[in-house]
Amino acid sequence: MSLLVVGTVAFDAIETPFGKTDKIIGGAATYIGLSASQFQHNINLVSVVGDDFPTSAIEMLNQHRVNTEGLQIKKDEKTFFWSGRYHNDMNTRDTMDTQLNVLETFDPIVPATYQNCECLMLGNLMPSIQQKVLNQLQNRPKLIVLDTMNFWMDHYMEDLLQALKNVDVLTINDEEARQLSGEYSLVKAARKILSFGPKYLIIKKGEHGALLFNDKEVFFAPALPLEDVFDPTGAGDTFAGGFVGHLCSTKDYSFENMKRAVIIGSAMASFCVEKFGTERMNGLGKEEVNQRIAEFVDLVQFDIELV
Amino acid sequence: MSLLVVGTVAFDAIETPFGKTDKIIGGAATYIGLSASQFQHNINLVSVVGDDFPTSAIEMLNQHRVNTEGLQIKKDEKTFFWSGRYHNDMNTRDTMDTQLNVLETFDPIVPATYQNCECLMLGNLMPSIQQKVLNQLQNRPKLIVLDTMNFWMDHYMEDLLQALKNVDVLTINDEEARQLSGEYSLVKAARKILSFGPKYLIIKKGEHGALLFNDKEVFFAPALPLEDVFDPTGAGDTFAGGFVGHLCSTKDYSFENMKRAVIIGSAMASFCVEKFGTERMNGLGKEEVNQRIAEFVDLVQFDIELV
Repeated sequence: MSLLVVGTVAFDAIETPFGKTDKIIGGAATYIGLSASQFQHNINLVSVVGDDFPTSAIEMLNQHRVNTEGLQIKKDEKTFFWSGRYHNDMNTRDTMDTQLNVLETFDPIVPATYQNCECLMLGNLMPSIQQKVLNQLQNRPKLIVLDTMNFWMDHYMEDLLQALKNVDVLTINDEEARQLSGEYSLVKAARKILSFGPKYLIIKKGEHGALLFNDKEVFFAPALPLEDVFDPTGAGDTFAGGFVGHLCSTKDYSFENMKRAVIIGSAMASFCVEKFGTERMNGLGKEEVNQRIAEFVDLVQFDIELV
Repeated sequence: MSLLVVGTVAFDAIETPFGKTDKIIGGAATYIGLSASQFQHNINLVSVVGDDFPTSAIEMLNQHRVNTEGLQIKKDEKTFFWSGRYHNDMNTRDTMDTQLNVLETFDPIVPATYQNCECLMLGNLMPSIQQKVLNQLQNRPKLIVLDTMNFWMDHYMEDLLQALKNVDVLTINDEEARQLSGEYSLVKAARKILSFGPKYLIIKKGEHGALLFNDKEVFFAPALPLEDVFDPTGAGDTFAGGFVGHLCSTKDYSFENMKRAVIIGSAMASFCVEKFGTERMNGLGKEEVNQRIAEFVDLVQFDIELV
């Protein structure tokens, strides 16, 4: 059973207090795929690039068990490009440049071999494109996870609300949860957002961890305290990849297993930020992953006896 | 065996987006004492008030097993007064008024009956006053916890660093940890601060939880996601009171027990913010406390099997 991942495959140029990169490989679907590949062995990608996108990067994805049959390569067109500069606190950034290029006319096509997927991960994209992918599936996946951002709330709120009616899990950050709900309290925000359609909500708080809500319960996963956050680019996508990768490989969609998936997603994100771009995720070993997850267990484990 | 608490007993006037109060009872030692009283039955207070301070408030402390023999009552003088207004995010506030009054000339005196205490909690005060209390103790307590704030770092850094050499646990917030260490990364900040003397450091992050460090380990306790934070005044002191109250009553100063103490402190703080001032802490029941601690267990509990 497969995991279908939809999202951007892109070039990024990143500047942080630690240095800067030229054009490197990025994009939500890239990070999601690399992260999910630690857990799920059958990943199908739907995305688009220009013919300036290096074959070696596609091969890198294939080596991580990401099937690229659904990756459209547009002749004589250019790959989506994003450039950003992080501030000293690493929590805020300025977008320096955005060149949509092939994304402007992206019409996603789900190959026949991608049908009957177990799980669907809708990475951050225009909500109408996310919906288009959903519409092409003959059978509803067991789990649909959608990631989005404030930009779509600002300009395409109706499309986003329409897409939310069809998903199981929404992942957004705390500011976006406040924007989407109009509530400052994250508890109130969660209740409102769950009324829009999703059965589960994950609120990502970066260095402050992540919250998982359903209509009755709440779970908190910390972020690992790190010496340095080198480059936060892709951390949220890497989180989502670990989350959905674990769920898809275990086929257990209970709240208990979602808690594990949130911890696993957090562990994966803690790797992502240690180097520029996808560098740390490329070729990450299983033992390192297990050791990191064990660090998360240590970080929050306590036993208490009520008297 | 007793817990010795040093800190302010004060009047506060508080304004939040939810309303405002006239002069109500506040002060670090008040919150610490009320919170610790849930766990520790022999609490000795060293502080100072003016004769404008109501007898009923002193009786309230006594009813919570806080011995006020060491509370100086200055005739014809006025109690320390602080007034503040919280912003909409409840994380930031403006000080509207500070009247030191009796604090200006406060010379702490530890009564003979307070000697041989098990634990000492040095609530937020001028570092030289904290040190004066330490100097009056004939035997070193098993555990010395010190709380402080940015104001003392700005103006009395040398005195603070001197006091830090003598304490076991320092509690500060994230911004103060950065200021004290000159390091942005909390992991690096913790390492540096531990080199100043304390064996343990607690970094309080408000709604984002708290971190406990020693030289080898780190533990993270979340804050309970709340519908509304009504009034954050005293939350940090209430945390410290629960922390030291648990440790003092169990006489177990291992890292494992400190982890429990951080969870218990977090649970106590989650009550404090539910109402104005000390209202929620006054007469809080044991069952409520146990139920709240159980909610913290649920919030972070997961079991994961590494494959």
